[in-house]
Amino acid sequence: MDLLLERFKDGAIDKDVVVQYLQELSYEDLGFAKIDHHRTARKGFPEVIYCAGKTEEQVVEIFRRLAERADRVLATRANPTMGRGVQKQVHGAEYHSVGQLITLGWKQTAQGIVGDVAVISAGTSDLPVAEEAAITAEVMGSTVTRVYDVGVAGLHRLLGELHRFQDAKAIIVVAGMEGALASVVGGLLDKPIIAVPTSVGYGAAFGGLAALLGMLNSCASGVSVVNIDNGFGAGFTAHLIARQAQG
Amino acid sequence: MDLLLERFKDGAIDKDVVVQYLQELSYEDLGFAKIDHHRTARKGFPEVIYCAGKTEEQVVEIFRRLAERADRVLATRANPTMGRGVQKQVHGAEYHSVGQLITLGWKQTAQGIVGDVAVISAGTSDLPVAEEAAITAEVMGSTVTRVYDVGVAGLHRLLGELHRFQDAKAIIVVAGMEGALASVVGGLLDKPIIAVPTSVGYGAAFGGLAALLGMLNSCASGVSVVNIDNGFGAGFTAHLIARQAQG
Amino acid sequence: MDLLLERFKDGAIDKDVVVQYLQELSYEDLGFAKIDHHRTARKGFPEVIYCAGKTEEQVVEIFRRLAERADRVLATRANPTMGRGVQKQVHGAEYHSVGQLITLGWKQTAQGIVGDVAVISAGTSDLPVAEEAAITAEVMGSTVTRVYDVGVAGLHRLLGELHRFQDAKAIIVVAGMEGALASVVGGLLDKPIIAVPTSVGYGAAFGGLAALLGMLNSCASGVSVVNIDNGFGAGFTAHLIARQAQG
Amino acid sequence: MDLLLERFKDGAIDKDVVVQYLQELSYEDLGFAKIDHHRTARKGFPEVIYCAGKTEEQVVEIFRRLAERADRVLATRANPTMGRGVQKQVHGAEYHSVGQLITLGWKQTAQGIVGDVAVISAGTSDLPVAEEAAITAEVMGSTVTRVYDVGVAGLHRLLGELHRFQDAKAIIVVAGMEGALASVVGGLLDKPIIAVPTSVGYGAAFGGLAALLGMLNSCASGVSVVNIDNGFGAGFTAHLIARQAQG
Amino acid sequence: MDLLLERFKDGAIDKDVVVQYLQELSYEDLGFAKIDHHRTARKGFPEVIYCAGKTEEQVVEIFRRLAERADRVLATRANPTMGRGVQKQVHGAEYHSVGQLITLGWKQTAQGIVGDVAVISAGTSDLPVAEEAAITAEVMGSTVTRVYDVGVAGLHRLLGELHRFQDAKAIIVVAGMEGALASVVGGLLDKPIIAVPTSVGYGAAFGGLAALLGMLNSCASGVSVVNIDNGFGAGFTAHLIARQAQG
Amino acid sequence: MDLLLERFKDGAIDKDVVVQYLQELSYEDLGFAKIDHHRTARKGFPEVIYCAGKTEEQVVEIFRRLAERADRVLATRANPTMGRGVQKQVHGAEYHSVGQLITLGWKQTAQGIVGDVAVISAGTSDLPVAEEAAITAEVMGSTVTRVYDVGVAGLHRLLGELHRFQDAKAIIVVAGMEGALASVVGGLLDKPIIAVPTSVGYGAAFGGLAALLGMLNSCASGVSVVNIDNGFGAGFTAHLIARQAQG
Amino acid sequence: MDLLLERFKDGAIDKDVVVQYLQELSYEDLGFAKIDHHRTARKGFPEVIYCAGKTEEQVVEIFRRLAERADRVLATRANPTMGRGVQKQVHGAEYHSVGQLITLGWKQTAQGIVGDVAVISAGTSDLPVAEEAAITAEVMGSTVTRVYDVGVAGLHRLLGELHRFQDAKAIIVVAGMEGALASVVGGLLDKPIIAVPTSVGYGAAFGGLAALLGMLNSCASGVSVVNIDNGFGAGFTAHLIARQAQG
Amino acid sequence: MDLLLERFKDGAIDKDVVVQYLQELSYEDLGFAKIDHHRTARKGFPEVIYCAGKTEEQVVEIFRRLAERADRVLATRANPTMGRGVQKQVHGAEYHSVGQLITLGWKQTAQGIVGDVAVISAGTSDLPVAEEAAITAEVMGSTVTRVYDVGVAGLHRLLGELHRFQDAKAIIVVAGMEGALASVVGGLLDKPIIAVPTSVGYGAAFGGLAALLGMLNSCASGVSVVNIDNGFGAGFTAHLIARQAQG
Repeated sequence: MDLLLERFKDGAIDKDVVVQYLQELSYEDLGFAKIDHHRTARKGFPEVIYCAGKTEEQVVEIFRRLAERADRVLATRANPTMGRGVQKQVHGAEYHSVGQLITLGWKQTAQGIVGDVAVISAGTSDLPVAEEAAITAEVMGSTVTRVYDVGVAGLHRLLGELHRFQDAKAIIVVAGMEGALASVVGGLLDKPIIAVPTSVGYGAAFGGLAALLGMLNSCASGVSVVNIDNGFGAGFTAHLIARQAQG
Repeated sequence: MDLLLERFKDGAIDKDVVVQYLQELSYEDLGFAKIDHHRTARKGFPEVIYCAGKTEEQVVEIFRRLAERADRVLATRANPTMGRGVQKQVHGAEYHSVGQLITLGWKQTAQGIVGDVAVISAGTSDLPVAEEAAITAEVMGSTVTRVYDVGVAGLHRLLGELHRFQDAKAIIVVAGMEGALASVVGGLLDKPIIAVPTSVGYGAAFGGLAALLGMLNSCASGVSVVNIDNGFGAGFTAHLIARQAQG
Repeated sequence: MDLLLERFKDGAIDKDVVVQYLQELSYEDLGFAKIDHHRTARKGFPEVIYCAGKTEEQVVEIFRRLAERADRVLATRANPTMGRGVQKQVHGAEYHSVGQLITLGWKQTAQGIVGDVAVISAGTSDLPVAEEAAITAEVMGSTVTRVYDVGVAGLHRLLGELHRFQDAKAIIVVAGMEGALASVVGGLLDKPIIAVPTSVGYGAAFGGLAALLGMLNSCASGVSVVNIDNGFGAGFTAHLIARQAQG
Repeated sequence: MDLLLERFKDGAIDKDVVVQYLQELSYEDLGFAKIDHHRTARKGFPEVIYCAGKTEEQVVEIFRRLAERADRVLATRANPTMGRGVQKQVHGAEYHSVGQLITLGWKQTAQGIVGDVAVISAGTSDLPVAEEAAITAEVMGSTVTRVYDVGVAGLHRLLGELHRFQDAKAIIVVAGMEGALASVVGGLLDKPIIAVPTSVGYGAAFGGLAALLGMLNSCASGVSVVNIDNGFGAGFTAHLIARQAQG
Repeated sequence: MDLLLERFKDGAIDKDVVVQYLQELSYEDLGFAKIDHHRTARKGFPEVIYCAGKTEEQVVEIFRRLAERADRVLATRANPTMGRGVQKQVHGAEYHSVGQLITLGWKQTAQGIVGDVAVISAGTSDLPVAEEAAITAEVMGSTVTRVYDVGVAGLHRLLGELHRFQDAKAIIVVAGMEGALASVVGGLLDKPIIAVPTSVGYGAAFGGLAALLGMLNSCASGVSVVNIDNGFGAGFTAHLIARQAQG
Repeated sequence: MDLLLERFKDGAIDKDVVVQYLQELSYEDLGFAKIDHHRTARKGFPEVIYCAGKTEEQVVEIFRRLAERADRVLATRANPTMGRGVQKQVHGAEYHSVGQLITLGWKQTAQGIVGDVAVISAGTSDLPVAEEAAITAEVMGSTVTRVYDVGVAGLHRLLGELHRFQDAKAIIVVAGMEGALASVVGGLLDKPIIAVPTSVGYGAAFGGLAALLGMLNSCASGVSVVNIDNGFGAGFTAHLIARQAQG
Repeated sequence: MDLLLERFKDGAIDKDVVVQYLQELSYEDLGFAKIDHHRTARKGFPEVIYCAGKTEEQVVEIFRRLAERADRVLATRANPTMGRGVQKQVHGAEYHSVGQLITLGWKQTAQGIVGDVAVISAGTSDLPVAEEAAITAEVMGSTVTRVYDVGVAGLHRLLGELHRFQDAKAIIVVAGMEGALASVVGGLLDKPIIAVPTSVGYGAAFGGLAALLGMLNSCASGVSVVNIDNGFGAGFTAHLIARQAQG
Repeated sequence: MDLLLERFKDGAIDKDVVVQYLQELSYEDLGFAKIDHHRTARKGFPEVIYCAGKTEEQVVEIFRRLAERADRVLATRANPTMGRGVQKQVHGAEYHSVGQLITLGWKQTAQGIVGDVAVISAGTSDLPVAEEAAITAEVMGSTVTRVYDVGVAGLHRLLGELHRFQDAKAIIVVAGMEGALASVVGGLLDKPIIAVPTSVGYGAAFGGLAALLGMLNSCASGVSVVNIDNGFGAGFTAHLIARQAQG
């Protein structure tokens, strides 16, 4: 940008060119979408495709365009058909059926290492959200330790796994119902905790509202919260935190 | 009642007398209130006076009338003026300032014994509700173990006190904010747990709603819930449970 | 546990063994779930399987593992396919279609006896929740008296059945719409009452919210509440209360 | 109106006169308020003054103007100062301190008669709303039977008073907390019942919301509901119903 | 009842007979339901069958039993299959597809007369609720004037129909969205108005909540409200009101 | 109307004729609907057909009747079958599949001109609502500039398009999730902004509630809000504003 | 800005100067506030001071600074002390006690003219909000017609005033309770209507929520809504609309 | 702990000693509170005192005890009286009146440096919450850059300050009303953002609910949220994140 202004001053380029550059180069207009290619520079990762409410054709096209300019691409809330569609068009793309994600450039965390990010879930029904978080963090470049089904009703399961994740840089806690797991983990560790309420539960769970309110009111400090079922947001934030630690 | 019907059949008493008996003897009409003297027979304890929204004069009058026919009386949500007013009129009445109760016939639980009922609270701000619960259970005839300020943010405090209450017949858990203490206690013990959400907290605690929803959605089994700040209801219920155990 | 610590002190076993014991023996890791075998000791009954959000394969596998170590097993919110799947694998398992439960070791309450637990429901639409409560209490070891379709709109039906359940140790009231039945029963009896709001109703019933709020605000004392449609929670709690009475 | 149109056709009056008549005569413009003198014709009673949010001067002035043209006037939610202010200016005006009403032309219902309208309240805290309803119906011309403090927790009190009001033309039920009294009364009688939820209660009563939802979802038929604490609305409606019966 | 007590006193009948009479005669136990045959005496109309959540077999059986003892029967929220099922078993039963009702003994209101009850609806989408109200009132014995599609957006349509219903004894206003029609009708007439909010609308209509709140807060007096989409409740109440006028 | 009154005065026409004119000419009664033909005069556009909750036959019939008297007609929330049905019956009718509208007399805005109305949307999922708004404004006679997919997460896209719409008379902002786009546009321009929250989003978006509240609380001035997903309302309002500018 | 870029290119000014200009000139940093002097250019009126939550000193200081650079200034939600404080410091400032505004450069609308903007209110309690709207529009340069106390309960009052405002460019409707006035006005006129819900009402009015939802769901087209009690927002928006009409 | 177990095995200490150690040493029982001295080890900072709902005496006593064992202490939501009380007893304690905090060992961030943590606020009314966040982070050991009054309504103010905080490790965004600032900052930077909704606003802001929902639904990634007005929680979390970066 500085260069551009310098060259504009030198007369090497025209004012209209500057304006056009600012307007057109930074995003690509597909008609139904304006792809934000500038986002990698600004946010450290290309625009992420939120597939809900898009057609298969739109998803495939946007994924393909992003893959032309970036070596890592992520699409969330993708159904299997979208996954197959992208895999046909983009070499190396993978579909993750539990977390409903399509990735390019994803690298699985090696067994047994302590990840930069830990993803802890309360029950088996929380798995899709937990996997959305874990794979998001991995495709962005973090390593992830998964600790699943360690809810508060059987506290010893959590304590038995504590050694596996207490040295992570950021900890994601995924829980539905009353979401008490976030408070318990937050009371035990001095790490930033990103709590993800899930819509698991019934009746007065009100689609995740009980867990959301519970986590926002956690009596433990160091807990912040993302939207209900928003595994992607938690994984993205955890990666940003872990990256601070890497300079 | 059987007697009444028999005597009516024998002609000893008239039908109008039966009707009048049913209507007039079972409650006393003060104009502003109908005192339910029949409640002791029906519910095992005389009508409890809920002072909020009553004048001092009304509270004193109702308390006095109940004290004429019963040896134990309870008034809740009483301010100090009401307390003094009753103490002047009714010999032996006591005022409990933290829990805002007036009692007649209350007996303090002896130190060191394991009570029939345990009252556990998360923080010091929950004390008024916890005391309302504890004294209610005591005035009804239960013994009570108090375990205060053992919230989830410092889990070891709870574990350090566990031996004091795990043999109680009924356990009351009083907590505000996210109310996670109910789930943690419920996960550790096989006792009936009565959870009392308190209005302690701010913002998205919404006056106790977060704790209420959290407790209703507890992933631990054996937890039932009473209204926000309803220490009286919890103490009453816990006493009923404990009494089952005494045959 | 005391024994373990003693033997560890004697040198009979190694510290690592203690730690491993605590961590591994108390739960079994199936990958998708960590079965909490320790729960029988802690809560008096093995882990209960909540089938919603689990696959048929997961339900069958967890049920089978639990049945290997316990003689009574319970699964809730199970569809008929899950029921058949479990019945093929586990000898003696039964499927209850109204309450959507799978049980092992369930014993039906004999006709005509007064159960430890009474289950009272307001309308025929509340039957699935009432049966979930009744069978839960039975599989845990309680006897149950069922009193169905005695809602407040026809009060004489309730009064006509009163003699059948007034000596139970714990009373479950299942009602939708405005849930007034809990208050009426609570006003008549001095027993612990567990109220279960159901999602029966329409419009401003808001999926059971009206009944839930009504029950939480009951003017009768001795009423505590579980989550909307949570028959299991009520049955479990009622059994715990009844068990106190049996020493 | 017909007359006016006839006279306009006859040429007796001018079109502008008709328009002016319609616009100016039917209300009186005080600057801060437009008094609707036409309302008696349209609604059978002059405009009722809702004092909340008005100054004492405004209340006195509007009351005085209405009293000039009508022999019965009603002001609701009036504080004692407003009451005294009106009494100084309007001969015969009365202030009712419990219900916070100012009336002109009010006639107390004679003792012992069965009123056209019955007002039933659950507790003593509901008195202000109950009185607002009762006096409203009386000032409009109905006779009223008052039956107070007969809540569901002591059902026999209600049954003991049943004979006093079962022949009323319309029945008002005033209750806070869970509002179950409306369902119980509605289940016993075949009369139109107007339920008034009150803001009496705490915690999950949410300022009368629990009672409001409970009454809207009443399982008894014939129950309709007015706004929380809206004794005036209930009294007005009950009078309209009773008046139908008088032809 | 008086007779019964007299004969019991005379020794003509035994106490057990009295109790049995009270308990068994007043309702019939089908196992899945307790039919309240006593309701006609108490409420002026036999128990109404709410079909939602019942099986076709249950609906047919209950309808058949009621039809054996009453000449008018009503079932609401019935799907066409239920309708056909009943029609096969009960001679003279009719199915009303718009309002989803099954009736026995229903008499259509003659054209052109002014009904005891008026049913006014705002839009064509409110028709099912309006018809549920109208037919309910008719089967109970009222005559009904229907005035449909006269919403506030075209006020002249309402004014053009005013002469048709202003002499009804009770007026039902059915409206969704903001429900303003109730206030406008209430401002024009001095009749009891029963407002029925419908779930018609989208977004911030929140399934009828906007209309419900609007009607509860109506600035016009004489308006009371029933549950969202509860045409039956409105029709029942309107009939009770109209019946008062007939002595 | 003036003419009518004059002729009535002259005796040229009878009073009954006047009344009949007022009642019958201004709307046409189809039985299931009262078509408001008078609306063009009153509101500048004929009655708009809201298709949700109507049958295909009703939609076709109402559209046909309106098309007989008006050269521009609009139907919203129409499914493709309704579209085809109308196109068969009404020459020149068009169906717009994205916005789900049927129009008669619609004129597409020419490329490149600055429209009277600008429609700005945050994401591709907001397209159906945006198109409902744009086509509504066009069929009423406005020209429209569309600026889609310029959400706040990539602010430069919005700034790059600013020159295209800053001279519009009214600006519609369509956004889901947190709806921040309305505040950002409102902070940049001194134009009336009509914000349309959409139901796009999940979890704590609560079906558009988050966006609705966000827009109502916008810190930028000049922003007013319509119902969730109400593109029609926004388009209609924007056209009314733009028309003021045209005298 | 174009000039600045040109001069920068000519070398007349330095890049740092451009950046500094952009950053420092456009707002003035008082420490506790950053005054946005650039807003006049951008939004057509200087920054408006929202006094709630500010100290008197802060209000006076910000008002004084704005008055140095602009001839019209507006402060909202100002208490009388703030008003007096500003009047001492800024010559020509006026305090409006009903609407709680401080203005500089305000010009009262002349009697009898038809204003560009009409402000219509339902009741006398809505006056403060209505005046906030009216004076806001006036200080920005519009003329305003005020039509107060014409609520739906007395529809003829509205019709009698219709001629006074039907030619305004924009119409503000201020109403509490159920807010039906917006729908009625919207059904009568083809003007852009800005509806302002007020917090007037009680019980289920929920602080203005009922009116807010009612207005958002208005069945009349052309109605958009601002926040509860936000008279300022409505006045600002109405002025922007009216200004479009003036080119 | 390892040492303790070893010594216990060696017989050097008794089992009771171990248990007592675990129970008594880790917290200090003041009767009204159990001070969690073990928290520094577990959470990196001693227990923080939440003053709301505590008496001045309790606050002073707890602060004094903590200060005996730690060199940095923090109390939040402290009124000036509590501040003076602590300052009298604890040498070096400071009271911060805007943020309502009492600190020991707090070090102000030097002017002009880029802090580890940035605190950005939308308006001057958000200052108390912003200062609570900033001082919390500072007392824990972070440096803080404060950027206040840069709300979305004047976007250039934010852009003008961007260079001051874009290199922070964690960014706190404090905003009320619609909370859009979090999305705008989140769209510009690739840093972890902790959003704090404030209760600033009125009407449909519902005490911070609008901002809370807006931030939870932020379309920008990397945003997590704490409770309404919870500046402490944001400051604590931001410090934890920044500390990761320091190894």
